[in-house]
Amino acid sequence: MVETLLFPSETLARFSRRVFEHFGVPPDDARIAAGILEAADLRGVDSHGVARLRTYFDMLSLGRINPKPSVTIVRESASTATVDGDNGLGLVVGPKANAIAMAKAAEAGSGWVSVRNTNHYGIAGWYVLEALKKDLIGWAMTNSTKLVAPLWGAKRMLGTNPIAIAFPGAEEPPIVIDLATCAAAYGKIEIAVRAGEKIPKGWAIDRAGKDTEDPQAMIDGGALLPLGSDRERGGHKGYGLAIAVDVLSAVLSGANWGPFTPPFALRQELPARAVGLGIGHFFGALRIDAFIDPDEFKRQIDDFVRTFRATKPAPGTNGPILPGDPEREAEAIRSKLGIPLVVPVVQDLEEISRCTGIALE
Amino acid sequence: MVETLLFPSETLARFSRRVFEHFGVPPDDARIAAGILEAADLRGVDSHGVARLRTYFDMLSLGRINPKPSVTIVRESASTATVDGDNGLGLVVGPKANAIAMAKAAEAGSGWVSVRNTNHYGIAGWYVLEALKKDLIGWAMTNSTKLVAPLWGAKRMLGTNPIAIAFPGAEEPPIVIDLATCAAAYGKIEIAVRAGEKIPKGWAIDRAGKDTEDPQAMIDGGALLPLGSDRERGGHKGYGLAIAVDVLSAVLSGANWGPFTPPFALRQELPARAVGLGIGHFFGALRIDAFIDPDEFKRQIDDFVRTFRATKPAPGTNGPILPGDPEREAEAIRSKLGIPLVVPVVQDLEEISRCTGIALE
Repeated sequence: MVETLLFPSETLARFSRRVFEHFGVPPDDARIAAGILEAADLRGVDSHGVARLRTYFDMLSLGRINPKPSVTIVRESASTATVDGDNGLGLVVGPKANAIAMAKAAEAGSGWVSVRNTNHYGIAGWYVLEALKKDLIGWAMTNSTKLVAPLWGAKRMLGTNPIAIAFPGAEEPPIVIDLATCAAAYGKIEIAVRAGEKIPKGWAIDRAGKDTEDPQAMIDGGALLPLGSDRERGGHKGYGLAIAVDVLSAVLSGANWGPFTPPFALRQELPARAVGLGIGHFFGALRIDAFIDPDEFKRQIDDFVRTFRATKPAPGTNGPILPGDPEREAEAIRSKLGIPLVVPVVQDLEEISRCTGIALE
Repeated sequence: MVETLLFPSETLARFSRRVFEHFGVPPDDARIAAGILEAADLRGVDSHGVARLRTYFDMLSLGRINPKPSVTIVRESASTATVDGDNGLGLVVGPKANAIAMAKAAEAGSGWVSVRNTNHYGIAGWYVLEALKKDLIGWAMTNSTKLVAPLWGAKRMLGTNPIAIAFPGAEEPPIVIDLATCAAAYGKIEIAVRAGEKIPKGWAIDRAGKDTEDPQAMIDGGALLPLGSDRERGGHKGYGLAIAVDVLSAVLSGANWGPFTPPFALRQELPARAVGLGIGHFFGALRIDAFIDPDEFKRQIDDFVRTFRATKPAPGTNGPILPGDPEREAEAIRSKLGIPLVVPVVQDLEEISRCTGIALE
């Protein structure tokens, strides 16, 4: 059992907001950026919440990220745009680009925005939840620094390249799909190292490219495996999905792709060369009423959700859940009890507090 | 080794075309429909080629499929449309709906079409290859009759719901991603039964919902597993992707979804109830020049392809390939040597020949 301390999410969000403002991030941008970290913590995606604030702090301190980016459309059509993020925080650039996709959808039925010259944007799920507020089907993807090997490769070449998409129900909660295109998250490798445990087959390879159950062997120059793990179980499919995310987010926008995607954290290896600007995101929005009566759509989603929940359970399980259920359950608990932070994260926040004079309260 | 007979693809395509025409399918539609089956056979996707002609023949013979559908747009916006396929062949409805997506993209930068009241449309890859001819990034999805269990479910609830997307290169061949969202194809289960072999872990469950290595146990009321197979290796991700395909193709268009998706073949179980019309497809098209200079995009794709081919190989492999490579290699061989058909398929074609008077030549 790992020791944790509980903080109200509002406290952490206020702290994050003030830290961003400390570096000159405009108040509205800082509030939204802090809200994305808060959403990750509330939804149980600890790796993408306030635990990342230290890295944002480091990057802003060193001037590696522009706190006041001029986010501009560099090319557009009725339903599409390419956005340059001016090397801003992904937490600032992402929401603006997502808003452009939603505005295009309002006009043209759908909106698709590819973004270059940006940085880590938090959880993909946040963006599609924004779209849900406007009765849109939202899509969000991003590339990220290399961690994943292509099938049959012995090196890190692709990011964990997530895909998120959400569909609203009427009485039932929305279906919120948010998945990385690798078999298991890097965070699970770190947890296994700390716990001194082996990792399951199909998660990772070592630096020689051999399958490994040793989490440290993955960390020491190995790589994660794509969703599907090996050829027999469809590893080529996860690899293909990761490529699709990379091309839509980065090649289509003019960002860096594949092994050239710049790292988020300072300690990570710098790419061999630059093939574009920053990292890349891809946002989409579809107006439901451009296809079908939205009430009818939502009634069908309700039926869909109930039908799948009623599936006969596999032995030893409580039966299928729907994408978005675990995050919603986490939010229900954490919004009452607070966000559990491990000691190293609390220490990071305390150090930021000392450096900036902003109280963690 | 399974005995096969070789046929020139043109012979099979001519035969398929004449069989479709025999039922009153208009000549242009029959030519395109036969071309989709031919593309599957050439690209090595035997399960979706002329081997399926028998089922199309049966369905047309029984009047279950409309040979002369009036394919209509029932709702649209600048960049989207919902299409009703009038219960036509998917091989006829699909190309028309895909053409609408491409025409919308020409006008609005992108085009997105959800299709209801349609039937099995062949290989998803054919549609995105059509988009490539117009320098568009093409997307194609479809739902299909239930074969796949949701994670933690003990029943077939979802189709193999494929996703295809393609990106053009300049000097390098295009990246053509075409994947079913389950761990392994049903065809591989049938092959294992015929060969008397076990199937790998992670492919299937039996009728009780337990993991099985017995292919017959999957066929006898079991189910395929989603991409990722189990919770540990990301089975919830493949399940999520299958849901996304189902909702975009069927809920958004007003088709049947999930376990209510009608079967393609006569021998398959009929759904418990109808929740819409026919099966559903989803097509997308993105104009590259709506985002970036297409020459620059293609140069980057060339660089991407060469970079991934140059990845250090995993032990015992020749290193990573790119999505679309195996199908292109199959096409190079089969366009010269012909299409290998197993004896039962040849017998089906001979029976169709007897019934229709159309010579297989």
